[in-house]
Amino acid sequence: MKLRTEWIDKRKNESNQSQMHLARKGVVTEEMRFVAKREGLDPEYIRSEVARGRMVIPANICHPNLEPMAIGINALCKINANIGNSALSSSIEKEVQKLNLAVKFGADTVMDLSTGTHLDETRTAIIEHSPVPVGTVPIYQALEAVHGKPENLTPDLMFEVIEHQARQGVDYMTIHAGVLIENLHLVAHRLTGIVSRGGAIMAQWCLHHRKQNFLYTEYHRLLEICKKYDVTISLGDGIRPGCLADASDAAQFAELDVLGELTLRAWDENVQVMIEGPGHVPLDQIPMNVEKQIKVCHEAPFYVLGPLVTDIAPGYDHITSAIGAAVAGQHGAAMLCYVTPREHLGLPDLDDVKQGVIAYKIAAHAADVARHRAGARDRDDAISKARFVFDWKKQFELSVDPEHAKALHDETLPDDYFKEAEFCSMCGPNFCSMHLSQELTNLGQENQEMRIQKKKERQERLLKA
Amino acid sequence: MKLRTEWIDKRKNESNQSQMHLARKGVVTEEMRFVAKREGLDPEYIRSEVARGRMVIPANICHPNLEPMAIGINALCKINANIGNSALSSSIEKEVQKLNLAVKFGADTVMDLSTGTHLDETRTAIIEHSPVPVGTVPIYQALEAVHGKPENLTPDLMFEVIEHQARQGVDYMTIHAGVLIENLHLVAHRLTGIVSRGGAIMAQWCLHHRKQNFLYTEYHRLLEICKKYDVTISLGDGIRPGCLADASDAAQFAELDVLGELTLRAWDENVQVMIEGPGHVPLDQIPMNVEKQIKVCHEAPFYVLGPLVTDIAPGYDHITSAIGAAVAGQHGAAMLCYVTPREHLGLPDLDDVKQGVIAYKIAAHAADVARHRAGARDRDDAISKARFVFDWKKQFELSVDPEHAKALHDETLPDDYFKEAEFCSMCGPNFCSMHLSQELTNLGQENQEMRIQKKKERQERLLKA
Repeated sequence: MKLRTEWIDKRKNESNQSQMHLARKGVVTEEMRFVAKREGLDPEYIRSEVARGRMVIPANICHPNLEPMAIGINALCKINANIGNSALSSSIEKEVQKLNLAVKFGADTVMDLSTGTHLDETRTAIIEHSPVPVGTVPIYQALEAVHGKPENLTPDLMFEVIEHQARQGVDYMTIHAGVLIENLHLVAHRLTGIVSRGGAIMAQWCLHHRKQNFLYTEYHRLLEICKKYDVTISLGDGIRPGCLADASDAAQFAELDVLGELTLRAWDENVQVMIEGPGHVPLDQIPMNVEKQIKVCHEAPFYVLGPLVTDIAPGYDHITSAIGAAVAGQHGAAMLCYVTPREHLGLPDLDDVKQGVIAYKIAAHAADVARHRAGARDRDDAISKARFVFDWKKQFELSVDPEHAKALHDETLPDDYFKEAEFCSMCGPNFCSMHLSQELTNLGQENQEMRIQKKKERQERLLKA
Repeated sequence: MKLRTEWIDKRKNESNQSQMHLARKGVVTEEMRFVAKREGLDPEYIRSEVARGRMVIPANICHPNLEPMAIGINALCKINANIGNSALSSSIEKEVQKLNLAVKFGADTVMDLSTGTHLDETRTAIIEHSPVPVGTVPIYQALEAVHGKPENLTPDLMFEVIEHQARQGVDYMTIHAGVLIENLHLVAHRLTGIVSRGGAIMAQWCLHHRKQNFLYTEYHRLLEICKKYDVTISLGDGIRPGCLADASDAAQFAELDVLGELTLRAWDENVQVMIEGPGHVPLDQIPMNVEKQIKVCHEAPFYVLGPLVTDIAPGYDHITSAIGAAVAGQHGAAMLCYVTPREHLGLPDLDDVKQGVIAYKIAAHAADVARHRAGARDRDDAISKARFVFDWKKQFELSVDPEHAKALHDETLPDDYFKEAEFCSMCGPNFCSMHLSQELTNLGQENQEMRIQKKKERQERLLKA
């Protein structure tokens, strides 16, 4: 028996399976209770947030082993790890390893972005093993079905693929319904054009057929599928900027307006929605980008990719983007899609996945602290206390990557004796400020009177000066 | 003949050797011209910034092989790399290697924070090999001279060490003159007390002797030495917070007030000053911290250590702190002191130095872009153009670490053929958005009329809805 089997079963006669539908009927679902516990929030509050669309619980009824989680400005900041093979690399087993590693280090959702062969087997394996929501970009599978020719895509094929993946248990899907033909000319001036794969595919289709994007014109078909399985729509930003120069331009914001419209249309059918965001954005433009999304998309959760705050560091884009992600989270982004060190250079391997997840765990946590979420700083305080009293073991335990912290420490001071030592190799025994500072605390308490005297002396001196 | 030999020689009769003294006399020095060229600014503007104290050019007259650089809010954001051995690790040769590596990857200054033995030889070797300003914390050598017993420090010993290091050519020195005895009680409530080594040493001295900090009471002796050699004072934040919980507290800001006072006293003697800052600060408090320093310290350049935006990631503190550093730089910090992955765990090795410098180069560059400095984004645009046209070689060349970017790319597609390929292993040939996007540009130009028609249709539909 899986966690959600009974929960799902007893709701099977609902006309719409979505958490939003139930929330709007006033039902506090088991998923909402589960989320409330994880978040330390009231279940009724979770229901009200889901009902108004400010929080989503991506939880396909065909993913019973899912441990539900929530994405929204009033929940903890979440992170997503992209995994998946490409035509040139990887295997199913490797992808399940990536999933496990990502979850171990704190990924809140994963996206299977596989292209190439064995798409169904890979996706099935990931969903079966995943306690976290699994997202996909169905157009990738549709494109494989037409042998990589965007112009051969058809609405029927596309919605067939979407329903197929929904039946497999995909919890959320990126849908590039906001790429409209009348906005494509806006990318002409760009340095790097369209950098979203799905966006580029739909743009090609539109221009080839001289027709409007069918994901937009036949959006109602998508909504019917989402209601049936409770798939959360992740409205893709197919026109997102791919470099600093293209950030915050007319093309990006024209699409955002469309996403705002599509949000309301989904909510009309009680379908859950979140909104994807860039990408590459200079640091000073990030707060504006987040605030604008919140306004234009009626508070639907914002799910950003980074953003990278500079283009100059391929090989280190987990860092360039963790900077942007932390600031985006601070200003209200609800989920941060990781970027790995391999970004722009190749398909991430296991270590890339780990490095990406950790960088983003740091960014999301920094954002939670900055937003003053209740209890967000507790772990910082606990590790700092351990640090101050030289409890090295506890310091390692509480850290984002205990094995790594211990390994770095042990490289210079491997002996177990040093796990109790009141110093490390950075400063050595005589120069440890923490050690000196502890001695100080004892000394300090005897010195109240002198303190008052000295302060008086200094004030007198300053007055004379 | 070294770069500065003649420049220095012709000024040897000046009563005060400092760049500030000369700037205030209206002299545009060769150092200022050199800096102006590097910064793309007018030499007279550099002079005026140095004269008002908003910019420093750390350039000891005994460091003739220095290639002058400037630190200030109106110059490019700079980064410092701490190197140096400790009683437990490293060697002179290793430290020179660290220097070379740091400079190769873009460190604008280095600090030799050596403790333990061979201090003079190490420092001499670093200065001789360094084209960038070298900073030190003289109290470390003074403490070694009294065998690690802070209470045995004397003013005479301290100023002797300072003059000795000035004669060796140290360009700037961290001086913990702001740690006042009457403020020490303010750290009693803290989670991690005093985490600055120099701060802890001076606090111990004060409490042991029940006397005021002699670096404060005999500050004039420091100024005399600085005038003689043009040593820039880096006023240490001995009471900086060592964890998020202690950030922005009364102890920190009481010291900052003292640093503001000491800034004016240095400027009265035409001595160059910058101000050191924290440390560990939640993301949302960073702008306030920078703005406060600028105000309290009369625009003297702010030189921050990180700050780390969370305490939970030992082993990854180059990332936790690069986030804070980028935001600090964006808001006006003039120099960012790097933190390596080894922070809190041990003395950085060569790879730690490299990782720290690169993370900070990213942070400083992101800050420059965010501050809209002229030309700051040029390199981003150039690399993005190369990316868009699949010029892999140029993309590698323009990146912060070309060898690393190429190595990551080559792991999956090693053949030279792929350096011209219009895809990488991330997406493979059919899914490359950049490739699709290029095709689009050609298609797009034929479609003006259709675009206008479709826009009209959508508007009509929206009006009806």
